[in-house]
Amino acid sequence: TTMKRVLVLAGDGIGPEVVREALRVIDWIDRRRHVPFDVQQGEVGGAAIDAHGTPLADATMALAQEADAVLLGAVGGPKWDALPFAQRPERGLLRLRKELQLYANLRPATVFAPLVDASTLKPEIVRGLDLMIVRELTGGIYFGEPRGIELLPDGQRRGINTQVYTTSEIHRVGRVAFDLARKRGSKVCSADKANVMESGRLWREEIQKLRDESYSDVELEHMYADAVAMELLRRPNRFDVIVTDNLFGDILSDEAAMMTGSLGMLPSASLGDQRADGGRKALYEPVHGSAPDIAGKDLANPIATILSLSMMLRWSFDMHTEADLIEQAVEGVLASGTRTGDIMAPGMARVSTTVMGDSILHEL
Amino acid sequence: TTMKRVLVLAGDGIGPEVVREALRVIDWIDRRRHVPFDVQQGEVGGAAIDAHGTPLADATMALAQEADAVLLGAVGGPKWDALPFAQRPERGLLRLRKELQLYANLRPATVFAPLVDASTLKPEIVRGLDLMIVRELTGGIYFGEPRGIELLPDGQRRGINTQVYTTSEIHRVGRVAFDLARKRGSKVCSADKANVMESGRLWREEIQKLRDESYSDVELEHMYADAVAMELLRRPNRFDVIVTDNLFGDILSDEAAMMTGSLGMLPSASLGDQRADGGRKALYEPVHGSAPDIAGKDLANPIATILSLSMMLRWSFDMHTEADLIEQAVEGVLASGTRTGDIMAPGMARVSTTVMGDSILHEL
Ligand SMILES: CC(C)[C@H](C(=O)O)[C@@H](O)C(=O)O
Ligand SMILES: CC(C)[C@H](C(=O)O)[C@@H](O)C(=O)O
Repeated sequence: TTMKRVLVLAGDGIGPEVVREALRVIDWIDRRRHVPFDVQQGEVGGAAIDAHGTPLADATMALAQEADAVLLGAVGGPKWDALPFAQRPERGLLRLRKELQLYANLRPATVFAPLVDASTLKPEIVRGLDLMIVRELTGGIYFGEPRGIELLPDGQRRGINTQVYTTSEIHRVGRVAFDLARKRGSKVCSADKANVMESGRLWREEIQKLRDESYSDVELEHMYADAVAMELLRRPNRFDVIVTDNLFGDILSDEAAMMTGSLGMLPSASLGDQRADGGRKALYEPVHGSAPDIAGKDLANPIATILSLSMMLRWSFDMHTEADLIEQAVEGVLASGTRTGDIMAPGMARVSTTVMGDSILHEL
Repeated sequence: TTMKRVLVLAGDGIGPEVVREALRVIDWIDRRRHVPFDVQQGEVGGAAIDAHGTPLADATMALAQEADAVLLGAVGGPKWDALPFAQRPERGLLRLRKELQLYANLRPATVFAPLVDASTLKPEIVRGLDLMIVRELTGGIYFGEPRGIELLPDGQRRGINTQVYTTSEIHRVGRVAFDLARKRGSKVCSADKANVMESGRLWREEIQKLRDESYSDVELEHMYADAVAMELLRRPNRFDVIVTDNLFGDILSDEAAMMTGSLGMLPSASLGDQRADGGRKALYEPVHGSAPDIAGKDLANPIATILSLSMMLRWSFDMHTEADLIEQAVEGVLASGTRTGDIMAPGMARVSTTVMGDSILHEL
């Protein structure tokens, strides 16, 4: 087995704490499963601003380019909130996405059986929920030009952003969604606002064309993004894979995540193109943010980050056995009643970040 | 009392059925409360396409300009789905919004006590829910230029839309939100993506400036739109008024609407500028769509349209007594166990659209 080169960017807030537990799991794989990992560490977000004066230093960007995969904690916090637009912690993350060309963001929304009551939705609505949102991540209004704020002759200001999508941008993320659907329930729902946006009209036509030409075995339905926001609440289990653009994906994937009631459990993967050698650029991160209020207190739930590592094993290294082991260990720990504060329930045992990590390692 | 000039555009699907019941309530006001109404009728959406070859005829637009208020049913349906972008039923509605300059869309999300179980959310989460979303309705990516689909030299296509907001567009909708908050819980949450969009950064700065200059008695908080999508599910009762742009408003208001579990109950108002004579252009419509599957079957719930009429009485005609009477009549009918199919529950009496109308008139 070749060395797996992983760049770890812990970031801000609870980032370092949750990443630390994932590093212990990497260490376990290295020693017990005899798969050698080369782990480098770097700064991103506020931590990078403090250390290097920029949310992502060029040297760190170079490390990310060389790595087989990046594991990220979280970015942002009140300390950096007053910074101007182009210097904020988020820009570090956006630069990683753009320069690594991580165009497909996989956001699973899964309800773990023992946590079904953590949702604000009724258990019968979310029980067994297992849907995957594939969000376009390097295009659309996040990166389109022209953009900016201009001063008008009459003293007013005008803010501009541009949503742009090309055929090939739509097809490549569409392919990820259809390929994924084939391994799951063979159903894709594509979300857009084709009724009011031409870019959405193009999105709809191109996704349909792709399906008809290359994925006619997969069932495709188109819905307006506002209807998806509703339907997620009404009957979430009707969905298998949802594919959508950068901005709708941002909102719909967060809605779906919150529906599970356990944000601290949810991982994500951001994938680039498959290379000739089989590898692909990829970044893995928990869905939750940097949670400044509980940072440094050993209270955060490390499971989302540990499951992000397990997504890395699957998607970047084809290590399905190890990924299965990790996921089973997490389920085992949950079944035994061990809980961090965010998923605490009556009768369970409340533990710290570190003890949750201990428990998962013990289970492994 | 002067004559109230109302243009009624029933539209498509269940539109005509639900509007018919609202017209009976107008008739009641006219005869029993001695407030004279001059009701004109016209076509919009698919009905207008069928009758005039366009989703909103110029003559109908002229009637709308002359009216004190417009009451709309719903637009759209499978019959017109294949039409090209610029000729679809929705364009009729968008033209009304734009030419009447209805820049503030008021979307209440209210849970009626007897219907608390209709929500897919747990009753303790949505009980007593009463929030108001103020959505900007004539700007942003819905109307920004340049827009369209272009062919690239390499045969690819590119879709473009533009999000534009100016200071004055942000201020005028902001004022509606702050004024409304003063009559309610005095709290406004403004939703944007100021972390990734310059137009969102402008939105945030201008809303803050407006508050500091003219509404310092109102509490203002800024949140990212994705965080609002989550927080709505986690703790909806923390919100009072939410103000946001056209596109985020489309999605977040539909999410909030579905959270109530009774879409068939929710009205909306779209307001233009207050004129010197005290009047303002305004359009009122139920939040639900044209529901082609149940159209023409006397099954639809007319309450959202009847409550839209009651919003009209409040906002266009200052007829608060009559609006109160209508709302009390609706509550009375619900309390007595009368239900259309969409809000049916065990032990209740299921009735048709017409009988629901009868019951409300009887209660009045
Ligand atoms: C931090 C922010 C730039 C980011 C986004 O909007 O994409 C976040 O919300 C996410 O979903 O990863
Ligand atoms: C029908 C459509 C154009 C419209 C919109 O997107 O604004 C609808 O979803 C709404 O919210 O009124």
